[in-house]
Amino acid sequence: MSHHRIIQILRHGQPDDVVTLKGWVRTKREQKEFTFVEINDGSSLKGLQAVLPQDLPNYGELVKGISTGAAVIFQGALVPSPGQGQRVELRVSQGELVGDCDASYPLQKKRHSFEFLRTIAHLRPRTNTLGAVMRVRNACAAAIHEFFQGQGFLWIQTPIITASDCEGAGELFTVTSLDLNHVPRGDSGAVDFGQDFFGKQAYLTVSGQLEGEIMATALSNIYTFGPTFRAENSNTSRHLAEFWMVEPEMAFCGLEGNMNLAEDFLKFIFRRVLELCPEDMEFFNDRIDQQVLDRAQTIINNEFARITYTEAIDHLEKASKVFDYPVAWGIDLQSEHERYLAEELFQKPLIVTDYPTQIKAFYMRLSDDAKTVAAMDVLAPGIGEIIGGSQREERLGVLEQRIQAQGLPLEDYWWYLDLRRYGSVPHAGFGLGFERLVQFMTGMANIRDVIPFPRSPLNAEF
Amino acid sequence: MSHHRIIQILRHGQPDDVVTLKGWVRTKREQKEFTFVEINDGSSLKGLQAVLPQDLPNYGELVKGISTGAAVIFQGALVPSPGQGQRVELRVSQGELVGDCDASYPLQKKRHSFEFLRTIAHLRPRTNTLGAVMRVRNACAAAIHEFFQGQGFLWIQTPIITASDCEGAGELFTVTSLDLNHVPRGDSGAVDFGQDFFGKQAYLTVSGQLEGEIMATALSNIYTFGPTFRAENSNTSRHLAEFWMVEPEMAFCGLEGNMNLAEDFLKFIFRRVLELCPEDMEFFNDRIDQQVLDRAQTIINNEFARITYTEAIDHLEKASKVFDYPVAWGIDLQSEHERYLAEELFQKPLIVTDYPTQIKAFYMRLSDDAKTVAAMDVLAPGIGEIIGGSQREERLGVLEQRIQAQGLPLEDYWWYLDLRRYGSVPHAGFGLGFERLVQFMTGMANIRDVIPFPRSPLNAEF
Repeated sequence: MSHHRIIQILRHGQPDDVVTLKGWVRTKREQKEFTFVEINDGSSLKGLQAVLPQDLPNYGELVKGISTGAAVIFQGALVPSPGQGQRVELRVSQGELVGDCDASYPLQKKRHSFEFLRTIAHLRPRTNTLGAVMRVRNACAAAIHEFFQGQGFLWIQTPIITASDCEGAGELFTVTSLDLNHVPRGDSGAVDFGQDFFGKQAYLTVSGQLEGEIMATALSNIYTFGPTFRAENSNTSRHLAEFWMVEPEMAFCGLEGNMNLAEDFLKFIFRRVLELCPEDMEFFNDRIDQQVLDRAQTIINNEFARITYTEAIDHLEKASKVFDYPVAWGIDLQSEHERYLAEELFQKPLIVTDYPTQIKAFYMRLSDDAKTVAAMDVLAPGIGEIIGGSQREERLGVLEQRIQAQGLPLEDYWWYLDLRRYGSVPHAGFGLGFERLVQFMTGMANIRDVIPFPRSPLNAEF
Repeated sequence: MSHHRIIQILRHGQPDDVVTLKGWVRTKREQKEFTFVEINDGSSLKGLQAVLPQDLPNYGELVKGISTGAAVIFQGALVPSPGQGQRVELRVSQGELVGDCDASYPLQKKRHSFEFLRTIAHLRPRTNTLGAVMRVRNACAAAIHEFFQGQGFLWIQTPIITASDCEGAGELFTVTSLDLNHVPRGDSGAVDFGQDFFGKQAYLTVSGQLEGEIMATALSNIYTFGPTFRAENSNTSRHLAEFWMVEPEMAFCGLEGNMNLAEDFLKFIFRRVLELCPEDMEFFNDRIDQQVLDRAQTIINNEFARITYTEAIDHLEKASKVFDYPVAWGIDLQSEHERYLAEELFQKPLIVTDYPTQIKAFYMRLSDDAKTVAAMDVLAPGIGEIIGGSQREERLGVLEQRIQAQGLPLEDYWWYLDLRRYGSVPHAGFGLGFERLVQFMTGMANIRDVIPFPRSPLNAEF
């Protein structure tokens, strides 16, 4: 780069350093002898103040052209700033208006609702909040790779298009190259997917876990980090039709190793993001949710409690609190139950294990009494469930029985069963919804505001 | 981890170190007093030799149960190895058969064709070649993040599902939640996509570039790294229906900065993979393609040549070589032309710029005489085109004309045009097909063998 990013200038710039600044105007303030312009280049929440002196050769023209949103290049020397909250400012000796900004620019006024900003998702990363979200999101993603690569896990790209709904995890989008106006039909009148691109009906994946198990039983430790999909008609602040998921999988690993990994992982990510984006995290704490920093510290500084589901039910039954959903062994824990455990009882993150068999997926390892499976959920104060995982059923016979018990056809799972036929090993892993993580990290109320271009019912703009 | 990865033992293990080894049996060799077992855990191409002495309490049972593909845990001390090509081996003092391997295991015999291995993609990462591919693929991916994060680029996840075919780059997959057996139709008889999940017809993305431009014009430097799709009926060794793409985009950047980034990027990735996976890269050079290491060094050690398309045509017209496709200004360069330039004429990587306007996309920046656009292709010996990029058209009026000249509806590009209306800046970027990169890096002949689960016409297994 021949120019200087503002984050570097703010952190390391010294008076008399000569710099070239390239960015967009946030504010302009004309005074008698100077014009003050705040420039942002997206590298930092804070902009840099540039001072245009009247003796610039093109002063009049420049100041006239500069408006909020305009793109400029300023050269000059850094000088100590008399203003509060900034160490240095730029005394401009050469200025150029690169791209002016039409008066119709929708980001003129200072405050806009997040709902409105979603309708201009092509401009919203230029705002303080969405810019900070994108930087924190990037830091989260980079920290995830840093964590796993540092421990020798391989990043595996599992397929997006799949011909099987092996997880049975929800409603699926169909992927097709057929002309829907002229769908080919077989003798029975049903759609002839034999003529479709893949020769059978294909879907968008809901999880890379089963393919992740393939890779873990060859390469030991792997993780996926890619997009997954749900065709659920859920118009809520916590659901997206397209979201990214992180799914590590470890061979020769049981539930305890899985819990250790999940705890180390969360601590690392929160600590690393605080290191990488301190100003942005302060901003979220000040402006969005005053629990953001406390919540991060609670995760970083506490040993996570670990209790079984059965113990959790005991605690809930003894609680003086009255719950909307009645508590009894066998129920799926509701948000109010999870929050009571994490926020009131333990007041720190906890991991609940060994859930009832009937409320969990077929691939989770069955306990000896068959009542529970080796599942685990990580619950955190102010967040609720953030990670769900399990040890996988590695015994061929048990797995076959569980697949059949759910009325699923064994032949669809031929390759998944092969992993138990040829050198089967105890293995375990978990899943983390990436946008949920970013939402909790930043305190943003709506998940649509922590992904660049959200997809939800009736919305696939941009 | 409570156990030791084989890569660590091979690199750092010393005699008398006590280690626990968890992996899968590759070979077993019974001798009078010992049984030799080679164990692999996927962390390394080479396995570790384990020596089972007859005085192990469970020796007979263990040796009987151990066969190729079986999973074992061995504990013991490292001892100097008398064998060639290995520094240490494991003297087993405690051994456990974790999972035996059914006699039907398809990886018994030593050599299998890659075609056959594709039919058992759930087992092929256990082979030497596919294991090495997965490690090199991971190293490539990690190096890509390392390169961009190190320079302050933000990783942006652009959407997979999109309602627009803005690039016009090829045949699209439709994404739908409609029941194709009962497609709703409007009054005209055409499909009523208003009743589909997104309220309009939606597709799988072919590129994140246009959304990447949105982010670059707010955050300066970004990159995408995610899956993209083509519904092309191409059954070749270089095409996939689903593949990953890397697309950096830089604001305040022209073609020269773009060329510099592409050159730095390729050099960094090749160098880093050689550092991270030296044994795997040696293996590819020995067994798959004896040009692998030379090709990497050619990229790392040469300053890339830079010529215009017009100069390239001059060179081709003067060449003594006879080409199948006749050379004339205005043609799209064919593979034979690109290879002649990179392999025979320059004998090193080169970047060709300023292609004829009519053979390139509408969004590339038009030159003053309108005959060429600020495009660039990076060509490398033994590879051909590996990167394609351009400076983007940042002038609103010119861009509108070019969209209309292609018969595209301006209103579909409202947000793309807004970027030129509000603080427009020169910006540039490029695209790199990730699987093509891994293919070139490893010398693998078929692109379906460098992705975990390839998707192609009639194939979406696993």
